[in-house]
Amino acid sequence: MTRICAVCIGDELLDGRISDKNASWLAAELGERGYMLDSVSIVPDDRQRIVDALDDASAHTDTVVVCGGLGPTADDMTREAAAGWVGDEVELDESVLAELRERFESRGYPFTENNRRQCAFPRTADILPTEVGTAAGFKLEKHDAQAYFLPGVPPEFRWFCETYILPAFAAEDESVLSHKFTFFGMGESQLETRLEGIVELAESVAGRVSYRAEFPIIEVNLKANSPDALQRLEEHLTDKIGPWLIAEDDQTLAERLGERLLADASTVTVAESCTAGWLGRDLTEVSGSSSWFERGFITYSNAAKAEMLGVDDDVLVRHGAVSAQTVCQMAAGAREAANATFALAISGIAGPSGGSPEKPVGTVEFGLATPTGVYRKRANFPSRGRAAVREMAVYTAMALLLWYLEDRLEPHDIQGPYDRSTVLADGGITVD
Amino acid sequence: MTRICAVCIGDELLDGRISDKNASWLAAELGERGYMLDSVSIVPDDRQRIVDALDDASAHTDTVVVCGGLGPTADDMTREAAAGWVGDEVELDESVLAELRERFESRGYPFTENNRRQCAFPRTADILPTEVGTAAGFKLEKHDAQAYFLPGVPPEFRWFCETYILPAFAAEDESVLSHKFTFFGMGESQLETRLEGIVELAESVAGRVSYRAEFPIIEVNLKANSPDALQRLEEHLTDKIGPWLIAEDDQTLAERLGERLLADASTVTVAESCTAGWLGRDLTEVSGSSSWFERGFITYSNAAKAEMLGVDDDVLVRHGAVSAQTVCQMAAGAREAANATFALAISGIAGPSGGSPEKPVGTVEFGLATPTGVYRKRANFPSRGRAAVREMAVYTAMALLLWYLEDRLEPHDIQGPYDRSTVLADGGITVD
Repeated sequence: MTRICAVCIGDELLDGRISDKNASWLAAELGERGYMLDSVSIVPDDRQRIVDALDDASAHTDTVVVCGGLGPTADDMTREAAAGWVGDEVELDESVLAELRERFESRGYPFTENNRRQCAFPRTADILPTEVGTAAGFKLEKHDAQAYFLPGVPPEFRWFCETYILPAFAAEDESVLSHKFTFFGMGESQLETRLEGIVELAESVAGRVSYRAEFPIIEVNLKANSPDALQRLEEHLTDKIGPWLIAEDDQTLAERLGERLLADASTVTVAESCTAGWLGRDLTEVSGSSSWFERGFITYSNAAKAEMLGVDDDVLVRHGAVSAQTVCQMAAGAREAANATFALAISGIAGPSGGSPEKPVGTVEFGLATPTGVYRKRANFPSRGRAAVREMAVYTAMALLLWYLEDRLEPHDIQGPYDRSTVLADGGITVD
Repeated sequence: MTRICAVCIGDELLDGRISDKNASWLAAELGERGYMLDSVSIVPDDRQRIVDALDDASAHTDTVVVCGGLGPTADDMTREAAAGWVGDEVELDESVLAELRERFESRGYPFTENNRRQCAFPRTADILPTEVGTAAGFKLEKHDAQAYFLPGVPPEFRWFCETYILPAFAAEDESVLSHKFTFFGMGESQLETRLEGIVELAESVAGRVSYRAEFPIIEVNLKANSPDALQRLEEHLTDKIGPWLIAEDDQTLAERLGERLLADASTVTVAESCTAGWLGRDLTEVSGSSSWFERGFITYSNAAKAEMLGVDDDVLVRHGAVSAQTVCQMAAGAREAANATFALAISGIAGPSGGSPEKPVGTVEFGLATPTGVYRKRANFPSRGRAAVREMAVYTAMALLLWYLEDRLEPHDIQGPYDRSTVLADGGITVD
């Protein structure tokens, strides 16, 4: 199996001006294809350091992907270092120069002396023409390894990888089947505990399981060589953590929610207090969401909750803005005001201030108004900061509606339904 | 000067499951202090590869920061590799074990055999106690270098760095003065062109300038040894790109906006179409925003614009939802409905569908209602995707209000003000 590593060049990666986006992208692309990077090295714009990194990388791997330092300015010295590495001189390539000059002229840009630098390559290099940007890449061989020198600008880097490198790694057996699942609502360690044994099961059916936590969601990727083997892994996963499923393959939670709403010709509205628009924003990340999302209410103050959604002043005074009673009235009021099939309401304490012993920071109340009544839920999110509490709240609200639509809501997820008159009369809501 | 490098350990960093967040964070922290990482290496969970990376790193630098592979599971082998590197055995530390066991018991968690592994260290290591998480770190010396072995979980890694490593790097001469500026509304290349000469100016006054683009904003950091030198750099910057300034030092745009509104005892409301809550969300990222933000309107459909904000049906039909006339009525209507000092309205075509030759994807109309009239602006954002158009729109709206409050709006930024009757009568709005 081909061994491939990445060498990223640039002071700006080491002094914090930018963070690497190329090696991590390449790792993900290779991971999708069943490969893994052998190593990543980040080194400064220093000729000797670049040569050392190339020597080290080419001694261990067959394919070295080098990015950065091919720009037009003086601190870009990758082409000189690469030439030195193979004992070459850097030479101007007249045909690349002529082509670049023509491209500049046809667009009316001035062609500067700096741009000439980008047309010089180590004498024995294979030039890799570009169809994006101004810098061509090039390829050198040493120690039986092939080293690809590519621009560091992420869209250009990706284009070169997709054009010149990744095709050789698309070779994973096409009979490999894969299925990706996204979960929400439990921590990584809880997931690991629940999935205990799945790695051994995967090995026993010659499959693979990998997972990746990206707060606040966790993706689990299953691979196998036969439909039967994949199915056994899927069944294990569904059995253990099925209730937390929010999406599959490349679909997002909002997309899956939108698909369900569209299929039922239903609509949803939002009544947001502590999230103040975040839920509306996430729902409308889906292109075409106007078919099922039409308006929403940002009710940050008590007055807004009363005036825009009809929440009783008395309920606000007696139970507070973060209460089951308030959030149920918010949901019921929003559903009616928007004439929507469903309404999601959120009211919570995002912090850092505003907490109390009974309602600490991270306490969030949810209301879900449906044609058959209003549900409610209280969550106590760990206080990982204001943004984390708000993001968890948005995911929770979307998950509640999805699980309702897919008939997967369980009593421990939510309480209710309470009928409209109960909610409006502020009676009969059981608070745990 | 101390030389410091990072070694990150973990298959999950190389097969794309997660991207490095530790080395890039450390680079940024060091950069703030005037230092730079010497290199970053990412290697797999493989004992020999870890030893090789440690040898290489310790040969070049004084301080090696190692992260990852200290967890409780079998593929975490950093502690064994570290011990092998210095020719030690791994030994259980009874006092760390007793303390960890007690912490688990006091919280009612089961203490498993796995957790014992986290209490073992190379015999000669200095143990670095933790106040966050379950894994202690440790320190080893070899080749005159000190190597710190830290957990890879980002919040824990950061705590260890802040506690054990960064204090030694806070030593940049205290007489160094710095000032950070954040700009919005121009591209990186445009900024570079406008700032031409600032690097030379910085050198001539023994100062430094660095910048960092994080879409859609650009931060410029100035450093100098004397107030005079810093002032000369500040003046150059302000002279060249002052109009695009949106924040300084560690303040965000929303925080600066909130500070201005609070100082004037003013309030703002939002009327959002294509951004559908994103502006409300960003304004309320500021803790305490309830003093100046009270409610907002997500008016995704034409009916919502008419019913919630009083936009004329006739205006919507004749000019469309994305028009100067509509967005001015949205702003005026929101300001009145919310009884706020200011209202920001956004209506645009975020894509990927919905564009037309006259109003391509990326066309966004903005309205700003103030006590003295309504302003409007049209932007044509490059089509870098739905999310990018929406994020640019949110920043633009906030910047418009900030520049208005700071009396920095220029005629090319915006048109108006139109008085309320003009806006409501749909007359007199000049569209360029």
